[in-house]
Amino acid sequence: MEKLYSDIVVIGGGPGGAICSVTAKLSHPEKEVMNIREFENQMVPCAIPYTFSDILGSVEKNLISCAMADKIGMKTLVGRVEKVDLESKTIHLADKEVSFDKLVFATGSKTFVHPSLQHALKLKGVFSVPKNVQYIKEMIEYVKEKKRVVVVGTGFIGIEMAIELCRSGKEVTVVGSKEYILANSFDDEIAAQAHQEMLNAGVKYIAHDRVVDVTDNSGDGVVDMVKLKSGESIETEVVVLATGYKANTELAQGLGLSFGHYGGIMVDEYMKSSNPDVFAIGDCAMKRGFISKSESKTMLASTASAEGRVAGMNIYGIQNLKNFSGTIAIFSTMVAEVAFSSAGITEAAAKASNAAVVSAVFEGSNRHPETMPDAQKQVVKLVAMQNTGQIIGGQIIGGKETGEMINMIGIMIENKMSIYDAMTMQVSTQPHLTAAPPSYPVVMCASMVAAKLKSMMKS
Amino acid sequence: MEKLYSDIVVIGGGPGGAICSVTAKLSHPEKEVMNIREFENQMVPCAIPYTFSDILGSVEKNLISCAMADKIGMKTLVGRVEKVDLESKTIHLADKEVSFDKLVFATGSKTFVHPSLQHALKLKGVFSVPKNVQYIKEMIEYVKEKKRVVVVGTGFIGIEMAIELCRSGKEVTVVGSKEYILANSFDDEIAAQAHQEMLNAGVKYIAHDRVVDVTDNSGDGVVDMVKLKSGESIETEVVVLATGYKANTELAQGLGLSFGHYGGIMVDEYMKSSNPDVFAIGDCAMKRGFISKSESKTMLASTASAEGRVAGMNIYGIQNLKNFSGTIAIFSTMVAEVAFSSAGITEAAAKASNAAVVSAVFEGSNRHPETMPDAQKQVVKLVAMQNTGQIIGGQIIGGKETGEMINMIGIMIENKMSIYDAMTMQVSTQPHLTAAPPSYPVVMCASMVAAKLKSMMKS
Repeated sequence: MEKLYSDIVVIGGGPGGAICSVTAKLSHPEKEVMNIREFENQMVPCAIPYTFSDILGSVEKNLISCAMADKIGMKTLVGRVEKVDLESKTIHLADKEVSFDKLVFATGSKTFVHPSLQHALKLKGVFSVPKNVQYIKEMIEYVKEKKRVVVVGTGFIGIEMAIELCRSGKEVTVVGSKEYILANSFDDEIAAQAHQEMLNAGVKYIAHDRVVDVTDNSGDGVVDMVKLKSGESIETEVVVLATGYKANTELAQGLGLSFGHYGGIMVDEYMKSSNPDVFAIGDCAMKRGFISKSESKTMLASTASAEGRVAGMNIYGIQNLKNFSGTIAIFSTMVAEVAFSSAGITEAAAKASNAAVVSAVFEGSNRHPETMPDAQKQVVKLVAMQNTGQIIGGQIIGGKETGEMINMIGIMIENKMSIYDAMTMQVSTQPHLTAAPPSYPVVMCASMVAAKLKSMMKS
Repeated sequence: MEKLYSDIVVIGGGPGGAICSVTAKLSHPEKEVMNIREFENQMVPCAIPYTFSDILGSVEKNLISCAMADKIGMKTLVGRVEKVDLESKTIHLADKEVSFDKLVFATGSKTFVHPSLQHALKLKGVFSVPKNVQYIKEMIEYVKEKKRVVVVGTGFIGIEMAIELCRSGKEVTVVGSKEYILANSFDDEIAAQAHQEMLNAGVKYIAHDRVVDVTDNSGDGVVDMVKLKSGESIETEVVVLATGYKANTELAQGLGLSFGHYGGIMVDEYMKSSNPDVFAIGDCAMKRGFISKSESKTMLASTASAEGRVAGMNIYGIQNLKNFSGTIAIFSTMVAEVAFSSAGITEAAAKASNAAVVSAVFEGSNRHPETMPDAQKQVVKLVAMQNTGQIIGGQIIGGKETGEMINMIGIMIENKMSIYDAMTMQVSTQPHLTAAPPSYPVVMCASMVAAKLKSMMKS
């Protein structure tokens, strides 16, 4: 039994764990930092769908290197952690023990499949979408020879999987309970457009229904049918269960830590758990929404990375005061050739939590003049508080610039900017890159919200 | 002589004048608003270079419509203003007089050519780049049949003209006094890369030299030679003098208004001149940099639009408190297939004005993993104050997302964010649209600046 020591140990090699280790070492060069990861190679989680089509074409093209680790003097240990003991401050692997001063859980999330469908995962041809290199490799091989696919789940991963499988020549059907896909992430008028792009790309959608069983009718252990609540059934060769993820906290159980209702390890704004020597970041850590500070289900690699940085910088005391509190859900997806992004809270979610909000939608172009060769429709929706005009949410449809434009809206939310601030903000415009100066969509949309508020004050 | 009245009159139909008129009408629906413009059709100023290549191919594809004006009940008058009388509050056109309550000068800028070269404009084949539809039409026709072009000037318009003329098959030479093009807009390490992209595109560059004469050696009134300070000369068929613009304030002279050193009409933060009923916006208005509040030469359609909105909203009293003071120079350009953007102040300019700054440059990718099909290098430079870490400038090289990414940095500057805030900010990442979550370049660059500051504190 080899015995090792490191001042800081981070368990987990995903984006959050990697950046946390690097940040901890750069912020505390005098400390030893060790990252313990189960696999030598990790995948870029959000690019998994693209390994199924010609965009990446293989798992090998989707691996993250840990080249930086050696360069900065951080240690990496590949191995499976079996047990954590907080009293002796020791981590147990099969053939090693690692003692530590500070510990960070970055153990991520595992696929969630409803108990009523878990038996289906035993059938050949039924898959979930875990962040596991070997699993995804075998899945790609299996799917290659098949034609008909059913995807269960209408979130980002489900829809991106459906579109890439369709792009690679499969007949793909998505089953969902709502009218439109991505219904939890976008308001209806935006989700409807994402929905239409998916249909245009050739993916079929069965709305207002639910998968109640996945079976091998012939009894040969190979999936051949999906049964729906409506009584309908779909013949298929492959089923993808993209029904979400849940915090992976097995190692953190029984250590006296507190957990949130959704299963994440409870942490403060600096990612410190109820034990001052234990931190948690990313999908395995509990999050709080930035408005009500109530628990949020957000699970994003970008959120994990931000949390990893915060933990890494402040693990030996607060060095870097956080000026923004809580988690902004901020994300982007491509549906075929159109990008859809969201930051903050949707109008529907705001109203459901009883917030008095006002919103507007502006439709323009992402180039100017609109005759520029690759001009594309650009739609911006802003959601603001009625009393103050403070911006609490934004949604964008457009070209590939959308991914950075939503980051601008994220910064506006973090800085508590109001629509009035947005109306006078200074932006850059260029024919090849943006909308026209007089009709820059974020500004135009803010003006529309202001006009609505003005008319509400009069009435 | 027809006599008209409008509560608010805006002179000028460029982007600033247009958005000012629209904003004034939307903000004051009970007031009459009239926009007086010299031409029915205006061009998108920053897309003029693209009318010379196959990107737009004609002036007709680069016209701004004023469709919105009628819809909101705003009046448009096409005509040339001959004189403004502030005592009687009347504007004189050839066959009309318009009285007003509030006046906005949005008369833009005129091309600037050094007195020693002005005689050359009389030669056939020598052009400046004015925002004039008829002039540009004739220039496109003339250039079409020619092969050899010399561009004088290394700013945005000069370089974009050079590249588009080169793209349409001309042999183009640019003459400049500096080592690299765009030297006033970018620090050397960024400008050097723009420079290389231009050379790769096939444009020739003569550095450390200056055009001292443009002549018709044969005496036929058609340009055939450019003479340089070094003694060299270049045979050519076309010369483009892209040597800048100056405030167009002819109509505002002799009215008792104050002017800045660079010729712009002096205004306050709400674009009000020394006369409370007279406002000025855009290129004809004086600007102050956001740091020292000293005079700035910034002339951008996006700045004009922001100023137009501010004036339009606040022309009858301050309705919308400005939370940010001064002008951020914020702009983007494409050099062949690569975008270059800048916001705020460059490191060189900061040092020249004796500001204690620190900077860093991070080089990454605009996609993740970097094997994504259209991945491109993404470079971010941040400039921050040494004492507080406050971000005062940013420069980006990348793909077409750069145009919105620089707007994010603009918002960070407006909100006085520090590199420490940037290190914990929450961004969205997506394989098709952005860098990877753990190596998002703005965050990485902020971390590098922080590390530099830390090492400075120790030494």
